[in-house]
Amino acid sequence: MITASIITIGDEILIGQIVDTNSSAISRSLGSIGVRCSSMSSIADDRDAIISESRKALKNNDIVILTGGLGPTKDDITKDALRELFGSRGYVINQEQSAIIHSILQSRGLDRLEANRNQALVPDGCEVIPNRRGTAPIMVFRFDAAKFGHTATLYSLPGVPHEALAALPEILDDIKSHYILDSIYHKNIMTYGLAESALSELIEPWEDSLPQQIRLAYLPNTLTGVRLRLSCYGMDQERAEQLLDSKTEELKKILSDKIYATTDSNLQTEIGRLLRGKGLTICAAESCTGGEIAHLITSVSGSSEYFVGSVTSYAIEVKEKLLNVKHKDIVKYGVVSGRVAAQMADGVRKLLGTTYAVATTGLAEGNDDFEKEGTVWIAVSGPHGTVTKKFEYHNDRIRNIQRFAATALDMLRTYILDDLY
Amino acid sequence: MITASIITIGDEILIGQIVDTNSSAISRSLGSIGVRCSSMSSIADDRDAIISESRKALKNNDIVILTGGLGPTKDDITKDALRELFGSRGYVINQEQSAIIHSILQSRGLDRLEANRNQALVPDGCEVIPNRRGTAPIMVFRFDAAKFGHTATLYSLPGVPHEALAALPEILDDIKSHYILDSIYHKNIMTYGLAESALSELIEPWEDSLPQQIRLAYLPNTLTGVRLRLSCYGMDQERAEQLLDSKTEELKKILSDKIYATTDSNLQTEIGRLLRGKGLTICAAESCTGGEIAHLITSVSGSSEYFVGSVTSYAIEVKEKLLNVKHKDIVKYGVVSGRVAAQMADGVRKLLGTTYAVATTGLAEGNDDFEKEGTVWIAVSGPHGTVTKKFEYHNDRIRNIQRFAATALDMLRTYILDDLY
Repeated sequence: MITASIITIGDEILIGQIVDTNSSAISRSLGSIGVRCSSMSSIADDRDAIISESRKALKNNDIVILTGGLGPTKDDITKDALRELFGSRGYVINQEQSAIIHSILQSRGLDRLEANRNQALVPDGCEVIPNRRGTAPIMVFRFDAAKFGHTATLYSLPGVPHEALAALPEILDDIKSHYILDSIYHKNIMTYGLAESALSELIEPWEDSLPQQIRLAYLPNTLTGVRLRLSCYGMDQERAEQLLDSKTEELKKILSDKIYATTDSNLQTEIGRLLRGKGLTICAAESCTGGEIAHLITSVSGSSEYFVGSVTSYAIEVKEKLLNVKHKDIVKYGVVSGRVAAQMADGVRKLLGTTYAVATTGLAEGNDDFEKEGTVWIAVSGPHGTVTKKFEYHNDRIRNIQRFAATALDMLRTYILDDLY
Repeated sequence: MITASIITIGDEILIGQIVDTNSSAISRSLGSIGVRCSSMSSIADDRDAIISESRKALKNNDIVILTGGLGPTKDDITKDALRELFGSRGYVINQEQSAIIHSILQSRGLDRLEANRNQALVPDGCEVIPNRRGTAPIMVFRFDAAKFGHTATLYSLPGVPHEALAALPEILDDIKSHYILDSIYHKNIMTYGLAESALSELIEPWEDSLPQQIRLAYLPNTLTGVRLRLSCYGMDQERAEQLLDSKTEELKKILSDKIYATTDSNLQTEIGRLLRGKGLTICAAESCTGGEIAHLITSVSGSSEYFVGSVTSYAIEVKEKLLNVKHKDIVKYGVVSGRVAAQMADGVRKLLGTTYAVATTGLAEGNDDFEKEGTVWIAVSGPHGTVTKKFEYHNDRIRNIQRFAATALDMLRTYILDDLY
């Protein structure tokens, strides 16, 4: 199997200033084409460390991906360390990157400084993948078998995450055209509403029935639920996809509407998919979720087609005045109650004139009411009446807000689903 | 200087299933007591890899922190690799951890399985810090100078983040009692409204004047602006704090209200600090930010004291109907205009009856209007009139939304500041 090592360079990661998210994203991408990551490491902006860590990684792996340590203020330590490791005598200007640098600086109204011009210099003999989002080029060093006992490739990427990730497709293509890779195919099954342990118990017989070519991973996330990832090794594409599809169909029978997508997705995207092109609209009334539901819905491109708006009714007066929640019911049942949630959903649906509405009222943090901490009442209002449900979670304020919002989106999703099919 | 290496064990991190957040948190903690992290690495659940990586790290450092690879399903690879590395002949039961395991299982209503009992076994001769949150004990291996040429300590922690982090205070105490550490003191200065490059240019003379005991780091973040971190090395606490404070005062004169806090903070927390206890209230009307402003404000504990609510007016009708934006102005100036932003802010302030209101209208993504992509008009309404301002950013949808929201919070903050002082 082709293996890779990922090295990040930079004091910011080492001293814990920033969390390294590049390595994880790169490893996932490599895994998707059948390259296994054998190690990850973070080292300082230090010439000796860069050379010795790269050398060790090249000795033990086919591929090494280096991120960071470039950029006009980094004194070119990384680039010169790589030049030495590769054995280049000097630098050459890469014309393509030079032109990109010029146009980036122009669009920002900046002069072309010496430091930026140096960014287009690369060690003689290395190949370049242009970086269209930034000034530092992506450098590809191909070592023949004489150096490390096997052919090896080192890719040097900028550390800025969006620049590094934008370069990945071209790097994967480059790897695919230079190495013979084991086949690997994945399928993601998105579930919501079951904790990892409950899910695992429920699907145990199915899991036991998986052929040995298929591996299953549980990937839980507060906002998107548990993602089940099936990976199929060592089969040709057609057979792998057939097998993954048939196993997914079996799982659908067990989990039914707990599965909301059979591709990597999230609840707000799937809600959009249900509504789009049908003239159906939604809105929200949020108390404890404080805007998070609206934020999640509007994070989806094109959501303005079906999302009309929302009211964050944090204060009781807003619930009464704008959403028409009855004062006597707040007094009688409390703000955190099914009655209030239902009236909020009905109220905002009428106010904004949408097909469906979702509402939340709860306590993300029990400053003065510990008994209700983590409790949320959610209501969905639509053409076929209003449903309410209570949920309890036990996290901190921020994570409770996220769980409340995701659960509300899931309730909205299942309501729409029932309504339409 | 005392140096440390952090090693995480586990396939989940290597294949990119989870992002390693432990290393960053551990490194920050070590940094706070003057221990410098020289390298981080992630390796597979593999005996040889664990032994060779630990050995290398112990050779090059005073301290090695290992996380993960423990737990009842991990087949004890890590523990036995450490036993071999340390030269223990066998295992002994740690009575304290054994009692903790017993009580944890009891509280969960579980039987005491063989696998769990084995968790209390540790290599002969290692010390134990009890893990009160989980079953795997924290093991401390002290190597004398004969082994690696210097005394070295290896701490083995569970991989579960909340268990690993809960153990940190005791580990820091252990380090402090066994090593003579250099003193290090930090000060965080939060700024908003200047890009890293502009900030750096503006404060260059001040930066050049810093004594060599002080180091400066720029830590940019989409939601919180650029955090400047001053670190003072090798001075006693009183003198260090005096020096850091006087340098901070100098910086305040240069940056004035671009600085919003001189401790680690964020804009929404500082807005809360300005309003709290004064009977002052705020609300928001959001178009392109779609709920993110309300979400950020309500992520602050106690925000219900001053945050009344918000209207997400995604559709034009909501702007007109609820916020009283004039139809003819929308036609004349466009939805993304200063007029509309101002009317939204005035409208929501009147609707919800607050002291101040902030409003946004813009285009996070230019689906059908590329010219305005990344453009936002922000308005703040208050007792002394309404101010509007236009901003342009060039990121993707999600990051544009975050920048718009953070910029709106900053405009609200400076308005309140001007109003109060």
